[in-house]
Amino acid sequence: MASNETRPVLALAMGDPAGISLELAAKLLADKEARSFADYIVVGDSRALAEGAKVAGVSIDLPVWHAGDKDIDLSKGAVVADVGHYDPAAIERGKASQAGGAFALANFRTVLRLANLGGADAATFTPFNKNAMRLAFPPYVDEIEVITAETGATSGGREFNILGDLWNARVTSHVPLSGVAELITKDRVLDGIRLTNESMKAAGFAKPRIAVAALNPHAGDGGNFGHEDDAEIAPAVEAAKAEGIICEGPYPSDTVFLRAKRGDYDVVQTMYHDQGQIAMKLMGFELGVTLIGGYGFPICTPAHGTAYDIAGQGIANLGATREAMRVASRMSAPKGTASTERARLLTECLETGKKSAAA
Amino acid sequence: MASNETRPVLALAMGDPAGISLELAAKLLADKEARSFADYIVVGDSRALAEGAKVAGVSIDLPVWHAGDKDIDLSKGAVVADVGHYDPAAIERGKASQAGGAFALANFRTVLRLANLGGADAATFTPFNKNAMRLAFPPYVDEIEVITAETGATSGGREFNILGDLWNARVTSHVPLSGVAELITKDRVLDGIRLTNESMKAAGFAKPRIAVAALNPHAGDGGNFGHEDDAEIAPAVEAAKAEGIICEGPYPSDTVFLRAKRGDYDVVQTMYHDQGQIAMKLMGFELGVTLIGGYGFPICTPAHGTAYDIAGQGIANLGATREAMRVASRMSAPKGTASTERARLLTECLETGKKSAAA
Repeated sequence: MASNETRPVLALAMGDPAGISLELAAKLLADKEARSFADYIVVGDSRALAEGAKVAGVSIDLPVWHAGDKDIDLSKGAVVADVGHYDPAAIERGKASQAGGAFALANFRTVLRLANLGGADAATFTPFNKNAMRLAFPPYVDEIEVITAETGATSGGREFNILGDLWNARVTSHVPLSGVAELITKDRVLDGIRLTNESMKAAGFAKPRIAVAALNPHAGDGGNFGHEDDAEIAPAVEAAKAEGIICEGPYPSDTVFLRAKRGDYDVVQTMYHDQGQIAMKLMGFELGVTLIGGYGFPICTPAHGTAYDIAGQGIANLGATREAMRVASRMSAPKGTASTERARLLTECLETGKKSAAA
Repeated sequence: MASNETRPVLALAMGDPAGISLELAAKLLADKEARSFADYIVVGDSRALAEGAKVAGVSIDLPVWHAGDKDIDLSKGAVVADVGHYDPAAIERGKASQAGGAFALANFRTVLRLANLGGADAATFTPFNKNAMRLAFPPYVDEIEVITAETGATSGGREFNILGDLWNARVTSHVPLSGVAELITKDRVLDGIRLTNESMKAAGFAKPRIAVAALNPHAGDGGNFGHEDDAEIAPAVEAAKAEGIICEGPYPSDTVFLRAKRGDYDVVQTMYHDQGQIAMKLMGFELGVTLIGGYGFPICTPAHGTAYDIAGQGIANLGATREAMRVASRMSAPKGTASTERARLLTECLETGKKSAAA
């Protein structure tokens, strides 16, 4: 079978099996809307997906691919890549475990490699549990480090949070608050604005309207409460404007989201993690999407977590996962890789994955 | 006339005359609900109030008090204390001016002194414009410094933001973000929690439920993104609990407001200005109230500003101002000061004000 030459092909990693991630993968594959805009290579284990389908109350009848198979059958618009590494006995619902983390991490590494090699147009995943990830891989801090390692990228990517048509971007992310200010330099802010502009254009915004948040209260109040807004951020905004980027700021962060929410801007470029996350989560936690950009292919996941508290109940809301796939689809540049080449690459990615897991 | 012995008496300073502050003062005095829970000594100028009434489209018929008058007539539940210092020719609507700032500042200083001396049970004000305040008084940074100076307090108060039944408190406020982390010590956080607890009890919460926000992303993630949450904030929470205060945390700041919003807590104790302001403003900017506590009497104002853009249109929303008066009323401990004593104190406060303005 030839692969679909025009629709984007999303590689989807099954996430942590102790929460709602398998249920979400199953619901996604049973969702007509999500299936309408992309094809899916779902990396994980057929037994895990069957478990998710049972919880979700859906039936899934898709071709199954195994390592070494010579072709990937995307004639039905989705295929399950069965890595054969799921051990249901090792997973207790609602509990982080080494086995659960290892399962999700192997799937994640595989979809990253596959997308990086051109075997898929985007990498996506249902939620991970950080504690489980650490049990499986103690140095784990966040997804960015894994992505950087798996893709061989020389610079780290950036995380975007997306809620409907409103985006949030950050200049710094997982750093102590005490270390934020010294990282807010003109160059770093300008780089952030540029990446935001490029990423949003790739997602279909012809001319994204960027509001840049201030670092300090009242945007530093003319230097009374910090100098970075005037000395670093404002010059970065001017430099970005000179490059033709539509951006304004720095604006006090306690009102900039009000203006973005009413439609004045497409994105707020924030300076630190909680500055944007407080606002975005208040505006609609459940439907948020996390996009990790800067790697040549989009990486998307729902913003919410594994929801251990409702695992196994079948009540997980597919909304954010569907939106994550929609963003990944929009941002994909379908390469039209042949299905036999996809199969070869997927086998290669799984073998590399096994080696790295054994190491 | 004897003053009302049971209702709280709020001293209200007319704010910046170039925005909506006069309109709000007039609307407040014409508002049955606001008049039902307190008596008002409105400090400013009769001409200014008449201007506000004209914009608001209301008519106000209240006794007028002048410096030196021997009695304050609160028989109608409100009186206008006419300082006689308003110069309409010096004020241009929508524009910050030295004259506008001086007018507001003199009123503010007067209500602060009056409440501090027991001539009123609370100090309140309609919005100030920071630029105008600085034109009148260049060292002006924020209200706290003026309050501390006028009351002779030896320690600064703390600002609370109130939205319906949800409060926000801060450990630090108008400081550069780079300086926040070093100010987050166990003692300072514990002091903040105690003042929040006391202030909310004074406002009628029998046992306020306090959620303490973390400083760092993901509450420091076990030390990966900063040590203050574990080393300073957590011990402060434990110490507060040991004193019988109902508090929990530190919780990641990007989800704690979601939980507070759904009713799990009465207040979020935040660590820095924007952490709380981003959330509070997103949840309902227009109806927010700012309370400054820690001085022996409450100081309240609407959280919004002077709204120069809609000055003179009569469309200013009274909601937040009415709520500010309600909070001030609830927190007041009516002293039942005699009306002749109030008159004597008010004359004294005005004379002191004139001297300090001339200095």
